[in-house]
Amino acid sequence: MDKIQRDQLYTQAREWVLEAGQRIRSKIDDPRTIETKSNANDLVTEMDQETEQFFAERIRETYEDHLVFGEEGFGDEIKSLDGTIWIIDPIDGTMNFVHQKRNFAISVGIYQDGIGEIGIIYNVMEDTIYTAKRGEGAYKNNRQLAQLPEESLLKQAIFALNTTWMLPENPYVSHQGIHELVKTLRSTRTYGSAALEFAFVAEGVIDGYLTMTLMPWDIAAGMVILKEVGGTVTTADGQEVDMLNKTTILACHPMLHEEVLETFVDLKE
Amino acid sequence: MDKIQRDQLYTQAREWVLEAGQRIRSKIDDPRTIETKSNANDLVTEMDQETEQFFAERIRETYEDHLVFGEEGFGDEIKSLDGTIWIIDPIDGTMNFVHQKRNFAISVGIYQDGIGEIGIIYNVMEDTIYTAKRGEGAYKNNRQLAQLPEESLLKQAIFALNTTWMLPENPYVSHQGIHELVKTLRSTRTYGSAALEFAFVAEGVIDGYLTMTLMPWDIAAGMVILKEVGGTVTTADGQEVDMLNKTTILACHPMLHEEVLETFVDLKE
Repeated sequence: MDKIQRDQLYTQAREWVLEAGQRIRSKIDDPRTIETKSNANDLVTEMDQETEQFFAERIRETYEDHLVFGEEGFGDEIKSLDGTIWIIDPIDGTMNFVHQKRNFAISVGIYQDGIGEIGIIYNVMEDTIYTAKRGEGAYKNNRQLAQLPEESLLKQAIFALNTTWMLPENPYVSHQGIHELVKTLRSTRTYGSAALEFAFVAEGVIDGYLTMTLMPWDIAAGMVILKEVGGTVTTADGQEVDMLNKTTILACHPMLHEEVLETFVDLKE
Repeated sequence: MDKIQRDQLYTQAREWVLEAGQRIRSKIDDPRTIETKSNANDLVTEMDQETEQFFAERIRETYEDHLVFGEEGFGDEIKSLDGTIWIIDPIDGTMNFVHQKRNFAISVGIYQDGIGEIGIIYNVMEDTIYTAKRGEGAYKNNRQLAQLPEESLLKQAIFALNTTWMLPENPYVSHQGIHELVKTLRSTRTYGSAALEFAFVAEGVIDGYLTMTLMPWDIAAGMVILKEVGGTVTTADGQEVDMLNKTTILACHPMLHEEVLETFVDLKE
């Protein structure tokens, strides 16, 4: 994708994201039907679905050859990363959306043949937008984000981490390693939106994010944004992230990445 | 304290809180000297100290007979709750202040002979103020907060919880019980400011907050605010909170309180 194409696509994507956000804000206090998906705590609302439809319709009308890969199933069946794919989470942090009416984001990543070209994460209620085009830096509300600092020490780092990974019976990761990580870090936070947690690492307000069960739409935008400030993103065992399937994630400052992987993360499978 | 006194005191306290917040915002990007207190992760800055001094000076000038009980030591030596005491955390969430430049609060509780009369929690960077006067309801930005809903179920609840309490070696609480709690809850969050976590319970965006090591200034305002919407606050073993000393806290919806205490919290000492 050349710069002119990327710029045009970015302008359009950003406009739709802001419009979708405005629609969500205007309906934030409406009565809500909440359904569950894979388990009782995996929530979905008609607003997730409407918002994904909003994107899918506009993308299909405007870009005939683009594909849509979304959480709620209004997109295409995606089996390869060939072509131009919009990877969309219409509401990342649906539990926050339902319980808090804030702290959720629209996440849109646009990938060309597997390469992340554009990332947009929109904290809808706060009206804060994180954006990046490949090779052109990352921005928060049009103000460029600094590169991550040269040095970072784990003992002074704050990581976003779910309490789930500290349970012995979690099926993904050795809890002992996570316990040791928690003891080594300065502190942990849990915000309940993967997209925002990526954005916060990019912004430097947290230093890393480790998690076990994300889908491509949770991370597609965040990866583009975080890479633009010098962050490192891999699976939690150091492999390249597979943008087609469920994945573990370690997203952090490059100085912390190897130490966390080697010393603290022991995947169960 | 009668209503006229309480109203006057509230108006003055709120004015000072907003002014202190404005001072913090104006210096948020200044270079910062960070010291540590009880341990390497217990941070304090000159801004914590300046802000407490700001309050202590004004209170002493204006209310000769009032006492100041603050985190940074510019107040009085408080050995009893007799009289009118301003219990102040100038920056609650200093780690967030240092690392994030947001997600911290000024917390001011005013107690008369041990009774919480006024509570003010000011999310400084977001410019959001939570307030309560005893018996007159709680407010967020002058809009009254609803009473907590009649029903609340633990399996649909979100609690604020630090990962520390899930470590077997934590000296305060049986980690097994906390693990069971995490498995029972819908989810957990960690925000890094006790005052804001109280405010969020009062607002209903989380359903409870369980923690092991708080000081009176962390909770004085939050207790007044949360009680006004029908929340229950005790120590983590169900005792009345001692507003003079370090304490554990369980602050939550009354329907969840007994179940959490009896089924999940087993204090070590």
